[in-house]
This record gives sequence, C-alpha cells and structure tokens, in this order.
Amino acid sequence: MEYYSADINRLVDELAALPGIGKKSAERMAFHIINLPADRVKRLSESITAAKEKARYCAECCTLTDAEYCPICANPKRDHKMIMVVENPRDLAAYEKTGKYGGVYHVLHGAISPMNGIGPSDLKLKELLERLKGDVDEVIIATNSSLEGEATAMYISKLIKPAGIKVTRIASGVPVGGDLEYIDEVTLLRAFEGRTEI
Amino acid sequence: MEYYSADINRLVDELAALPGIGKKSAERMAFHIINLPADRVKRLSESITAAKEKARYCAECCTLTDAEYCPICANPKRDHKMIMVVENPRDLAAYEKTGKYGGVYHVLHGAISPMNGIGPSDLKLKELLERLKGDVDEVIIATNSSLEGEATAMYISKLIKPAGIKVTRIASGVPVGGDLEYIDEVTLLRAFEGRTEI
Repeated sequence: MEYYSADINRLVDELAALPGIGKKSAERMAFHIINLPADRVKRLSESITAAKEKARYCAECCTLTDAEYCPICANPKRDHKMIMVVENPRDLAAYEKTGKYGGVYHVLHGAISPMNGIGPSDLKLKELLERLKGDVDEVIIATNSSLEGEATAMYISKLIKPAGIKVTRIASGVPVGGDLEYIDEVTLLRAFEGRTEI
Repeated sequence: MEYYSADINRLVDELAALPGIGKKSAERMAFHIINLPADRVKRLSESITAAKEKARYCAECCTLTDAEYCPICANPKRDHKMIMVVENPRDLAAYEKTGKYGGVYHVLHGAISPMNGIGPSDLKLKELLERLKGDVDEVIIATNSSLEGEATAMYISKLIKPAGIKVTRIASGVPVGGDLEYIDEVTLLRAFEGRTEI
C-alpha cells in the first residue's frame, strides 16, 4: 500500500487484527483516531497498556481483574457458597447485568474442545476443585449450550458429584447453539430459575 | 458496572467511543487485547500514538502522512499536472486501489455542508488554489456524489474555471448518494474514464 504513510498503514494493520474488525473499519477507526485531540489518543493508548499490564486472574474466581480479588469476590454481601461456573468474563458480565444473581462465579476461560486442542487441563478446573474444599452449597454450571459447553458441563458434573456437592445446570431457556453473552436478560433469568440437578 | 475491573471498564469505554464499535464489540476487543502477548499489546498501543504524533498534512496534497511529502507526491513517476480532488484520505486510497490512476491528488478533508457548519474556508481550498499557480493540465473533481459532494464540486469548478484550467468531474458511474470509499474498483474506473468537463 503506497497510499497511506507507514505509520498509518501500521495502525490500520494493528486495528484490522482485532476480532470483528475488517480492513474498511480499521481505516475508518485509524483516521478517526488521528483526528482526535492528542489527549484523547493518549488516553486510548494508555488504557490499552494499563488494562494489559494490570490484568490478572482473581485469586478466587479466576476472572480477569486488576486486584488480588475481583469486585464480586471482594463483596461480602454476595453468597460465597453459591458458585456459577462460566466460560469467560463476558458471560459473567451477562449474568451480572440481570442484577438478580447474588452468588459468586468461577471463570473457566474456555470450554473443552478436542477439535481445537483444548482439554480439561487448559481450563481453570484445578482452581475450581480447590474452592470446593471450602464451604460450598451449590455449583451452577452456566457454560454455553453449544457442543463444547455441554461437554464441559458434563465433565464438571462428573468431576464434582463424588464430593457430594449439589451441581445444577442452567435450564434450557437458553436456545441450543446460542452464545450466552448475546441472550436477553429475561431468558437468562428463566434459565437460572429453572436450573435442574445433574 | 461492577462486573469488570476499573481498567477493563476504561478500555471498553475507550474502544466503544470509536466509530462503528458498539458496547459488545468493545468488550470482545478488550478481552482479545488483554489475552494478546505483551509485545503485541505494546505494538498496538505504540502504533496509535505514533500515527497520531507523526501525522501531518502533505505539503503538496494535504493528505495525512508522516513526512513533508506523502508517498504519492514524492513519486516523480506520477503525473503532477493532473490533480484529483477528493474529500478525505480514504477516498484517495479508494482510487489508488484501482492501480490505474497516474496523477496526483488533493485532499479537501471534508465537503461543504452548511447544515454541519462546514464552509469553503474549512476545506483545504487555499492550498489547492496555491497549487494551481504552477503547471497544471487538469483538475478532476472526485468528491462524493452526495448533496455535499456535488455542492463542493460546483463550488470548486466555479472557483477554478476563471483561471483557464480544465476542470472535470468523475462520471456518474458512481451511484447517486453513494460513498466513494465503498464502491468497487470497476465502477470507480468507469467513472474516471467517463469524466466530463464542467
């Protein structure tokens, strides 16, 4: 590409490498950024490095956060005996947006997917088992209702049940094949209320 | 939002402020960025500040570049007596992608739009008139075929014609109301070939 300068080309390429961003969108974004006031550009750039540098796993639930414990695990008003297992932090946020779930979470950071070479050891399962040694009333498995999510749910239930802990699965109010983070809050709540023991 | 840490929320907000990026996309992008290797994140962040810091107008055609002259104006093989006037750098890139235009450009950085308070003095017209004092054979007006683009084309042709320079307008192969940067290369070439004197 001779038509932009090297710096602009580099920015376009970096932006186009982000998920869901095509070449055209990257160009629009790049020129938008260049035309922003300098302090806004600095803020954008710094927010990227800051989020990356400070990002760490919550010592309790393994979600991405910037302190030893995430805001939810650090909240004493949450029911720490009720653990909802989700695939990623955005799924956690999806349930938080319902505003009705009072327990805590456990973020697996993925789902079992032999096709993509992701096995149980690639998920935060060791950390989950460690938590279950404490005082836990119920584990709610809220992985996606995709093939991988269902397989992961089955795997976890078989892993946990011998310990005598109540294991539930969110109801199939969530459409099969759907992605948790895109589902409306009413459906998410119905799925939570209709959970069944597995 | 209690469900993400302050740094992640800040990054999501900054990304969601970019054009065409909604909240959901910003969340996907943010977690994608956090999961990238540290050197990739550094590159992304640096490319943003570098493009902004080094961005300047080409001394000849006013496009955004990082040197005194953009790669096109600095190229002696281009026909510097043929100037195509476009609204923004992405429109320049759209014509460059056809690979068949051998002249140079002039970037207005906008179009006349009284509704948005953009008048002729907000565009790079003074710089265009300055260039026309040199040896110029033809000025091709390739503003968008929107209301603003057409008005700008009329304004420029009236401004330049007294100087006795040939002024042309790209043909209406470009659909009326369309945005130049999204049009296929064949249509762009047809519009170039079918240009008429105005």
